Amino acid sequence: MSEKKVIRIGILGFGTVGQGTWKQLTDNANSLSSILGVSLEPVRAAVRDLSKAREVEISTDQLISDAQSIVDDPDIDVICELMGGVEVARELTLRAFANGKHVVTANKALICEHGQEMFEAAEKANVRYAFEASVAGGIPIIKVLRECLVANEFPLVYGILNGTSNYILTRMEQEGASFEEVLNDARSLGYVEADEALDLDGVDAAHKAVILAYLAHGMWFPIEDMPIEGIRRISNEDLQAARDLNCKIKLIAVIRRNFYNNHVSVGVHPALVPMDEIIARTDGVYNGVSITGTAVGTTVLTGRGAGQDPTASSVVGDIVDIVKTITGDAPPPKLLHVTPDQCSPATAREVKGSFYLRLTVDDRPGQLAQVAEALSDQEISIATVSQALKECRNAASLILTTHKTNEHSVALAMEKLEKLPGVLEAPVLFRMFDPNGKDNS
Amino acid sequence: MSEKKVIRIGILGFGTVGQGTWKQLTDNANSLSSILGVSLEPVRAAVRDLSKAREVEISTDQLISDAQSIVDDPDIDVICELMGGVEVARELTLRAFANGKHVVTANKALICEHGQEMFEAAEKANVRYAFEASVAGGIPIIKVLRECLVANEFPLVYGILNGTSNYILTRMEQEGASFEEVLNDARSLGYVEADEALDLDGVDAAHKAVILAYLAHGMWFPIEDMPIEGIRRISNEDLQAARDLNCKIKLIAVIRRNFYNNHVSVGVHPALVPMDEIIARTDGVYNGVSITGTAVGTTVLTGRGAGQDPTASSVVGDIVDIVKTITGDAPPPKLLHVTPDQCSPATAREVKGSFYLRLTVDDRPGQLAQVAEALSDQEISIATVSQALKECRNAASLILTTHKTNEHSVALAMEKLEKLPGVLEAPVLFRMFDPNGKDNS
Repeated sequence: MSEKKVIRIGILGFGTVGQGTWKQLTDNANSLSSILGVSLEPVRAAVRDLSKAREVEISTDQLISDAQSIVDDPDIDVICELMGGVEVARELTLRAFANGKHVVTANKALICEHGQEMFEAAEKANVRYAFEASVAGGIPIIKVLRECLVANEFPLVYGILNGTSNYILTRMEQEGASFEEVLNDARSLGYVEADEALDLDGVDAAHKAVILAYLAHGMWFPIEDMPIEGIRRISNEDLQAARDLNCKIKLIAVIRRNFYNNHVSVGVHPALVPMDEIIARTDGVYNGVSITGTAVGTTVLTGRGAGQDPTASSVVGDIVDIVKTITGDAPPPKLLHVTPDQCSPATAREVKGSFYLRLTVDDRPGQLAQVAEALSDQEISIATVSQALKECRNAASLILTTHKTNEHSVALAMEKLEKLPGVLEAPVLFRMFDPNGKDNS
Repeated sequence: MSEKKVIRIGILGFGTVGQGTWKQLTDNANSLSSILGVSLEPVRAAVRDLSKAREVEISTDQLISDAQSIVDDPDIDVICELMGGVEVARELTLRAFANGKHVVTANKALICEHGQEMFEAAEKANVRYAFEASVAGGIPIIKVLRECLVANEFPLVYGILNGTSNYILTRMEQEGASFEEVLNDARSLGYVEADEALDLDGVDAAHKAVILAYLAHGMWFPIEDMPIEGIRRISNEDLQAARDLNCKIKLIAVIRRNFYNNHVSVGVHPALVPMDEIIARTDGVYNGVSITGTAVGTTVLTGRGAGQDPTASSVVGDIVDIVKTITGDAPPPKLLHVTPDQCSPATAREVKGSFYLRLTVDDRPGQLAQVAEALSDQEISIATVSQALKECRNAASLILTTHKTNEHSVALAMEKLEKLPGVLEAPVLFRMFDPNGKDNS
């Protein structure tokens, strides 16, 4: 056992999560030291702009602008990388590893892009790289997948991984408010990242999906091969139509594995989720992840996916795990629950399912016939159709659902539909999520 | 690092969970050894009756009747105590500790009754006592409370902890079937424990509630002081009345802590749970636990709370944790997330909330008046009343809900109501669960 009585923590980035972590370490100091047998002491935090006002109390000598001096400080044992961004964060983290420091991170973009390199570097340096806060905020999905469910393989992991887009969809659905209107509210509440594509175009959820796919299947799914769609094309009309089909439209990440060929599909897209799924009823800023394991069956976790306190709760949980490693003189545990099988990405032809399609067409005879023909050319069979007049112009809204087909055929059909003379806008296409689907569907 | 290449596992009890554990260790042997770097080998299982047919394949020399020989075998590293019962299991577990063996258990009754003694003995022997499978089957609630959410204190933990009673209530609710009818089905499906009080009278859920209260608050709540009620008095009429109040009746365990005085209330009882709670919609054999933490907010976990594979999934997760301890030569970690505060049980006067009350009364004037008076004498104020004639006799059903009161006053009122001349049956009383309630309500 080490004689260490104080574990010193340096924080890179003093935004929402950095301040939350500082606050929790300070506020819970007695309780943590009593259960851990050592004191956790946040000693310094690095920021780009020293002049900015902070909500959490920190003395002027503790807040500095030189992040590297924290990473190089021999008295600091654990680094919390809560600064975001990829390149600078990567360099500082690798330098921390080389200096023998454990690192806790909430940085999904960094892990998504450089996970393999980061984990190898941490292992080589015999330190831990802990990342519970990187996916789904306060929901302990990383530990659950990695440790608790180690007896399982995972045919399906899916869920809502971005709280901001879920907040927008929920308010549109519940109030009939427009996308732009709710987006403006979300901006003024500080819910939307500076790079809005992260929240609105599914990019943030895609980063997190890559991490979950790695934990579930031991493969780094190439994000450039992932179908990623956001919420910008979801209208109030779609939300209502989904409701009529006893579904809710949610932006979900879906990770499926076909155990016959070990092909894995990973995608982020709006989908019609049946109302009896907990994920369909996970509203507002909440996140939810549904895990189907070969032994455990389906287990669902919901909770706050972002925000200061929930995310800092995950950071502190990781720090405590690391402290156990330090005080126990134990070697850092390897990444568990990485299945040894070789998985590879599924092709678009293999990814099967039903679809929801909304077309704005000229209100004149023959439109449905040519749409049906374009689908039939790809052997896509129609399940339901409904048509309504648009307000104030000679256009109609044509809403179809299909029977089971595959993503490749749908992509071909969409190309054709877009070019049809009577189709007035780019067609809107959403997946119909089937919790019991197989074949990467 | 130890040189150990094979970790040998002995299993006490070869019922549902024991066989599931054996099967998973055998079926996933390659995968587990690849990620752990050591092989896990189930070597022997002990049963009372050697002649009984087993579903899982095991050779005759591996299945024995002498449990103690497994506990004493120096080649066995980890014992899985999956036999149930209290006294024999306690003695074998303590003996295993004394022999330096780690123990994995699913035995909630043993932990509930002797937890303090067991954990102290394990700590003294420098071995681990792991019990993920003891609460909520495959849902990793133990690790989540103990490790992931260590930054939190818990004003409220509540949920469905017994799958059999939830199965019965769900079928009664969905099909209008009678309690006896569904109970018989559940018996023939093997869902009901030999000691039926465990499932039907809330005893099993109470054992689990004691364990969760210990993890959340570091106190062993005396089970003899816990209000424990089962599902026998829930009628189809109650389920319908609850539905009219936009609730579902669920058998829930509720653990609340008042942070002003650190009083903790723990109870198991049927309650009307608002439909927008995930717990209200957790149906069939599923379990669900809703955890409200000071940092994380509300996180809900649902999944299969019992059954061979889900429970064995938790056992194997615990075994893997222990293997990390063994191969890392790390000392067994202490029980974390036991708050250092001194908590004590709340009194019935402190436990506040609203109630649902159903009375079968003579169908004649004046009944409501005397019922209202009995409540008013205890300063219990009525929120809603509805009355319906019973079929085939001169009786009426009087359903009331109250405004907020406390358990002490309600108990006094019930005594009085029972004795009223026009009240024909013992009154039926359920709590109205309020997820936002404070004051141990």
